[in-house]
Amino acid sequence: MARCEILAIGTEMLSGDRQDTNSVWLRRELRELALQVVRVTQVGDDLADIVAALQEALSRAELVVATGGLGPTEDDCTLAAVARAAGREQVLSREIHRGLEERASRAGRIVTESALRQAMVPARSRVYPNARGTAPGLAVETAGKLLVVLPGVPDEMKGIYREQVAADLRARFDPCGLSRGSLLIAGRWESEVDDAVAGPCEAAGVDRTILASAGIVELHLTGSEPAVRQAVEAIRRDLGADVISSTGASLPEVVVEAARERRGALSVAESCTGGRVAALLTGVPGASEVFGRGYVVYSDDAKVELLGVDRELLRRHGAVSRPSVEAMLAGLMERSRCRWGLAVTGIAGPGGGSPSKPVGTVWLAAGGPAGARVIRRSFPGSRPRVQEAAARIGLDLLRRVILQEEPA
Amino acid sequence: MARCEILAIGTEMLSGDRQDTNSVWLRRELRELALQVVRVTQVGDDLADIVAALQEALSRAELVVATGGLGPTEDDCTLAAVARAAGREQVLSREIHRGLEERASRAGRIVTESALRQAMVPARSRVYPNARGTAPGLAVETAGKLLVVLPGVPDEMKGIYREQVAADLRARFDPCGLSRGSLLIAGRWESEVDDAVAGPCEAAGVDRTILASAGIVELHLTGSEPAVRQAVEAIRRDLGADVISSTGASLPEVVVEAARERRGALSVAESCTGGRVAALLTGVPGASEVFGRGYVVYSDDAKVELLGVDRELLRRHGAVSRPSVEAMLAGLMERSRCRWGLAVTGIAGPGGGSPSKPVGTVWLAAGGPAGARVIRRSFPGSRPRVQEAAARIGLDLLRRVILQEEPA
Repeated sequence: MARCEILAIGTEMLSGDRQDTNSVWLRRELRELALQVVRVTQVGDDLADIVAALQEALSRAELVVATGGLGPTEDDCTLAAVARAAGREQVLSREIHRGLEERASRAGRIVTESALRQAMVPARSRVYPNARGTAPGLAVETAGKLLVVLPGVPDEMKGIYREQVAADLRARFDPCGLSRGSLLIAGRWESEVDDAVAGPCEAAGVDRTILASAGIVELHLTGSEPAVRQAVEAIRRDLGADVISSTGASLPEVVVEAARERRGALSVAESCTGGRVAALLTGVPGASEVFGRGYVVYSDDAKVELLGVDRELLRRHGAVSRPSVEAMLAGLMERSRCRWGLAVTGIAGPGGGSPSKPVGTVWLAAGGPAGARVIRRSFPGSRPRVQEAAARIGLDLLRRVILQEEPA
Repeated sequence: MARCEILAIGTEMLSGDRQDTNSVWLRRELRELALQVVRVTQVGDDLADIVAALQEALSRAELVVATGGLGPTEDDCTLAAVARAAGREQVLSREIHRGLEERASRAGRIVTESALRQAMVPARSRVYPNARGTAPGLAVETAGKLLVVLPGVPDEMKGIYREQVAADLRARFDPCGLSRGSLLIAGRWESEVDDAVAGPCEAAGVDRTILASAGIVELHLTGSEPAVRQAVEAIRRDLGADVISSTGASLPEVVVEAARERRGALSVAESCTGGRVAALLTGVPGASEVFGRGYVVYSDDAKVELLGVDRELLRRHGAVSRPSVEAMLAGLMERSRCRWGLAVTGIAGPGGGSPSKPVGTVWLAAGGPAGARVIRRSFPGSRPRVQEAAARIGLDLLRRVILQEEPA
């Protein structure tokens, strides 16, 4: 396995203002290519520090992937550092220059001198155009080592890597044929999943990694292609409906696709999740085929006026209760005229908890032609974690209700 | 400012299975002590790699803080690496040994040979006992540099740092009174902000870092307390209403607080943002005081039925147009009976674009007693970035409309 290092550039990470999520993502991608990441380094936007870190990394590893510091402001000095580390001069890239001019003219502006900094690439670089922003990626070959430089904006970095860089790395470093699989699982704890999958994984001879967040467990498998397939099939059989997907599809994608296959529409009524379920669904391209509307009913008034919930019922049982979530679902189904619906109400905190209904208490109800399911959950953690977990568990409940019907 | 480096040790981080959250936390803590973190390095549990990384870091920085690899298993080799890097032998710490024995006897067990590994500290170390686990922290003085070693389990690391290490570092490095400030700015490009703040920052003698994401620019300042205050005041004066906050408050927090100060309520009608504006608002604790309801109107039917938009108008101008967003806002204001409202409609992509309305085209309208503002924006990037930027620019527009009125 070729040794690889990652260099993340940006003072904002060293000061703690930004987390370096790019390196986490890149490590997984590089692992897919069987490249072994042996070191990750973060340095600030300081020319001398970056040059030193690049030279050290290139002395140790066959591949160095650097991110960040390619923008137009004066503290962005990665291009200059790469040129110096590789002993090259900086030259104006016509390709990047043209891209900047087109972008500026669409916005009715001119290319400023500082924007031009982004086009001054080290001589004899390979340029990877950036379809999502201005700063392009680069590859520089130096002393038999490869240095790849990508912008720090996460979706620009990911786009350039996936669409352009990955194929080059694959061609150069020739992965040894390892295959990977992943499963998303709901309704079980991380340790339960670990116990349940240990047998199938060991029988098939695949390595596994388990990650849990906000109520969903991710299982990553690595092994030969038939071994991974065998393990995935065994786990799907053992865990049944708790497996959300084994194809890489996300939970919202699975829900949208399940509704699309059954040619029905769905709607949501959200109190404590405050729009997060709708946001997850509308994050899926083409969600409009199955999702037309959502109600954020954060107050009692909104639950009464938008969903027709009985005010006296809310008063008697409280807005966070089985009768209230059932009434929200009933009102949603009637008013939206959708085939499936989800209602969520809970206490996200930090205030509003009581001994009988502590912060984190959430009622969820999903319904459709095959009937309704109502559950109560108690999510740990702070407000954002409760809201995020409630949204994801709500979507999972909706998935289970939709899947009770056969596809059209 | 003393230069400091962080070394995070553990193979699980390099494989991408776990994120290195310890370094993020430590960077903020060290910044509080005015220690300048110039580099963060992650290495796996490999003795030679750790020794090399420790020696390199100690050659550059006055303080090195290392975390992880202190446990009982065979791959934990940080103690041996520290001993080798500092040229010391390993000796049995009676204090740690006694702690391990007490812990084992409470559990009715005996101290195993592998557990004893954790007590073999480099000679002449300062030991920081671990009240939450078994592996203690250490400080080693070598060639005038200080090396602090902490366990990798986050709450053990944080506990030892806060309760024991921080005071030692404060005493040794004597913070020089550096102060920090930050501003959130909307309505200007990153490079425009850079041009606008360069003068005030240089006049006041403060260092600056600029970050941009999803339509909002963050500016972080560092300098003496009066210098930072002077720069913040000058920038606020120069940039006027484009400054969202200079207190650390987020954009949603500023919007909620502005509405609360004016004792009014707000509501949102979202098409392309699909619930993201509502989710941002309800992420603020206490948002229910000013936010009671939101409409996710993703389809034409929903715009007609929930907001009373004229179907013929949608047909004639398209859902992404000035007349449509104005009609959405008018319907929202009438039906929600709120003092302020925001309507958003656009093309998030990847499909749905046309030459006259490309992907990324978004119309936003915010209104209240002081009048309405309608803007058209063209956001670059992929679907999630368009949705995220539209949600944030929408909130900013709402902020500007609310701030036109005097607080109650």
